[in-house]
Amino acid sequence: MLKEWVKDDRPSDEELSARLEKARAELMVRQMQVKEKGLPVLVVFDGWGAAGKGSVLGRVIKGLDPRFFKCETLTEPTSDELRRPFLYRYFVRIPKEGKFSFFDGSWMGEVTSQFLHGDISKKQYKEHLTSIKRFERTLNDNGYLVVKFFFHIDEKIQRKRLKELEENKHTKWRVSEKDKWQNKHYDKCLDVYDEYIEATNQFVAPWYFIDSSAKKWSELQVTEILVASIDTALANAESEKKAPLLQNTFPLRETPKLSEISLDKTIEEEEYKKELDVLQKRLGQLHNELYHKKIPVIIAYEGWDAAGKGGNIKRIAGALDPRGYEVHPIASPEPAEKARHYLWRFWNRLPKDGHIAIFDRTWYGRVMVERLEGFCSENDWQRAYNEINEFEKELADWNAVVIKFWVQIDKDTQLARFTDRQNTPEKQWKITDEDWRNREKWDQYEEAIDEMLQKTNTKYAPWYVLESNDKKYARIKALKIVIKAIEKKLAE
Amino acid sequence: MLKEWVKDDRPSDEELSARLEKARAELMVRQMQVKEKGLPVLVVFDGWGAAGKGSVLGRVIKGLDPRFFKCETLTEPTSDELRRPFLYRYFVRIPKEGKFSFFDGSWMGEVTSQFLHGDISKKQYKEHLTSIKRFERTLNDNGYLVVKFFFHIDEKIQRKRLKELEENKHTKWRVSEKDKWQNKHYDKCLDVYDEYIEATNQFVAPWYFIDSSAKKWSELQVTEILVASIDTALANAESEKKAPLLQNTFPLRETPKLSEISLDKTIEEEEYKKELDVLQKRLGQLHNELYHKKIPVIIAYEGWDAAGKGGNIKRIAGALDPRGYEVHPIASPEPAEKARHYLWRFWNRLPKDGHIAIFDRTWYGRVMVERLEGFCSENDWQRAYNEINEFEKELADWNAVVIKFWVQIDKDTQLARFTDRQNTPEKQWKITDEDWRNREKWDQYEEAIDEMLQKTNTKYAPWYVLESNDKKYARIKALKIVIKAIEKKLAE
Repeated sequence: MLKEWVKDDRPSDEELSARLEKARAELMVRQMQVKEKGLPVLVVFDGWGAAGKGSVLGRVIKGLDPRFFKCETLTEPTSDELRRPFLYRYFVRIPKEGKFSFFDGSWMGEVTSQFLHGDISKKQYKEHLTSIKRFERTLNDNGYLVVKFFFHIDEKIQRKRLKELEENKHTKWRVSEKDKWQNKHYDKCLDVYDEYIEATNQFVAPWYFIDSSAKKWSELQVTEILVASIDTALANAESEKKAPLLQNTFPLRETPKLSEISLDKTIEEEEYKKELDVLQKRLGQLHNELYHKKIPVIIAYEGWDAAGKGGNIKRIAGALDPRGYEVHPIASPEPAEKARHYLWRFWNRLPKDGHIAIFDRTWYGRVMVERLEGFCSENDWQRAYNEINEFEKELADWNAVVIKFWVQIDKDTQLARFTDRQNTPEKQWKITDEDWRNREKWDQYEEAIDEMLQKTNTKYAPWYVLESNDKKYARIKALKIVIKAIEKKLAE
Repeated sequence: MLKEWVKDDRPSDEELSARLEKARAELMVRQMQVKEKGLPVLVVFDGWGAAGKGSVLGRVIKGLDPRFFKCETLTEPTSDELRRPFLYRYFVRIPKEGKFSFFDGSWMGEVTSQFLHGDISKKQYKEHLTSIKRFERTLNDNGYLVVKFFFHIDEKIQRKRLKELEENKHTKWRVSEKDKWQNKHYDKCLDVYDEYIEATNQFVAPWYFIDSSAKKWSELQVTEILVASIDTALANAESEKKAPLLQNTFPLRETPKLSEISLDKTIEEEEYKKELDVLQKRLGQLHNELYHKKIPVIIAYEGWDAAGKGGNIKRIAGALDPRGYEVHPIASPEPAEKARHYLWRFWNRLPKDGHIAIFDRTWYGRVMVERLEGFCSENDWQRAYNEINEFEKELADWNAVVIKFWVQIDKDTQLARFTDRQNTPEKQWKITDEDWRNREKWDQYEEAIDEMLQKTNTKYAPWYVLESNDKKYARIKALKIVIKAIEKKLAE
């Protein structure tokens, strides 16, 4: 695509100035509309070294109100970022509703550079391309505008510019070794960029090439495209957002319905104590091994109110080295969280490699409480099954162990526990009016949970039902599952 | 993707039979739902020669009601099909609402084979990939379910099967030279298929790989995926369809508003006659050249009622050899047309190469009358600008000359012509109540037309405004534009 691209004729200086004045004024108007309509706008500046990305970015933002945008320079990942999934550093930086984020450099630069320099294999590279396509699409599906610019110059202009920059002692620092390498291997880089662009040129997030032979001309192209793209996104936002549901392409496990699960499993007190002791010791050892092998573990808990999630988590956590794990209780989202993609707050809570994160309630809120209480649109929660499968695929590709527990009790057991909480002063804080209200919707919840288990029980991030009428039975079962999953991963 | 694909474990015979029975029953239920909900379903069977596509297709349709599906065997294009745009033979075969079309072989097989055998260049091949992605996406956007299967076997199994088929005199005919070539160049083919699949594996039309080591197992995989895919599509159809508008990526020309166009241009009778004569002769010559060089021409007319489209078309057509052109008057769609993608009836009317098609009213009805009369949803007409740009890009890539005329008059001129028609007995058939009703909506139409001209005035399929207060001026202008465009193409 890039190779066959035919540049637009550069307009005369006079026409250029006139068009630029008009485009700048229009962008200022669009900025206010973006704010009013709550549109999040992510603009990516990528392209050749010395193509002028930075200085054009500087020109474009000049006319904008600094309260409404953020610029991020995304060159090499930090050592902390390298310990997270590849998309982490980008996902945590997505803009809020009504704001612009300008990325100087992006995932494109990162993966193409890693691939060109042999830091990642062809296979990893291709996996990243898939991840990138999912990332850009899910942003779009969730109401984001993503605009991607590639600043293009030919080998000769690049060589000339790099030479000029290097010869001037004030600009010498701007020329990196990678820039020089890029110029020396221009054709090889061009091949890789061309293929990358073709592979990631999605309808919902197309590439725009910027003829970067002159700054003012670059600025005009960028500004005009931004204005037109914002108009498209505003038109999309005007109608209720509704992205098509996708056909499932992830490998699913067979999943029974909750009503088919027998809850009469129990364990004797003595056996419980013995097993608990043995299993916790074993888990402690494994935690140590995980840490050394830098394998991350994510354990997600969902379940009925009073099903015994808290006690179950305690028995897992109790076996772990406190320096190596974190428990994340998930409540309703904060305003800053609500104003972004609903998975943003979970990306933000991902552990470093070698660490364990335990989520007490999770991203599955989208397809349970948010669905049933109308906190998101029908299209939002229907889309979420696939979005969640994609999210967990990122975790699995990052080599994480992903385990999801559904803690199951029957309706009578819940009533008994609620009543007990109500009648026991030191437990009263654990029971609220909301619990009783949720209980009234048991059947609706059960239907939603069945659908959730059915659609997200993937081979790489499986669901396990913990029969928790007998809480002790459930704890032992959880420990065994966690141990087995970690052992399996360590043996890979 | 194909290369890294890990097959599912094949279930035991017992489990296979049980699952197959269940899946077949479910597909029968889905068939009725598809009919009731008016879902059009396009299922593509592609893959290796001797992978069993045909016989699995035979098994799958066995349980379906033959009134509700059609099978199409799409091997080599016919000589007539070769004279149309590449996608023509597929677009004209898309199913109606509520029906299935099963394609045994598809655009995948066609383009990969052409590419492998060197019949098309790398550049053409890549253009085709883009066309294919647009085609599959626009079907999805317009409510189609597209399911793509790739039947996979390894080189050894293929070799064994081909040998067995060849050794049996009843099946010998089923082994083609291309099959043998494919087996001999298995790895080379695999590379190309793998890349093709990766390039066309869109979220809205993903690929499914079928482990084709055994027929019953293949049938099970196909049936289960079909059922799940139909469920997704039915869920999408349940809510009002709303696909996101796309950012424009086509090169647009600057376009004035209708109100900025001065309509006082005229021509003297004598000059008109002289010019008409010269220009028509020239166009006649060019038509001959076009014919020999097999260049297709598409001329699209839109304009206000009584603007003089008919007379204008007559002057173009009058210059042409009647064996080499066709005029298509476009009225409201027939039921069979309404039940398909709205561009279907225009694909069906495309000329052969070397021929000229003149459309008296066009696909732009979508963004004018259908928009204003509510014959399609807001999302439908908003999406149409891009869909039309894509459609015309197919025409341009097929090397067609594409010219679009907007025949413009002012409101007073229309009134005078309407009144004249009303008062002249032999012209009364030309004026209807609808014309008067449309006239009342002049301002709404003007707004829609301005938006249409703005968004679809591409460099490869430009709009020309014909100032037709003086019809003769407009005719001469039209002839000149057509001549110039054809001369330019012939000189390429």
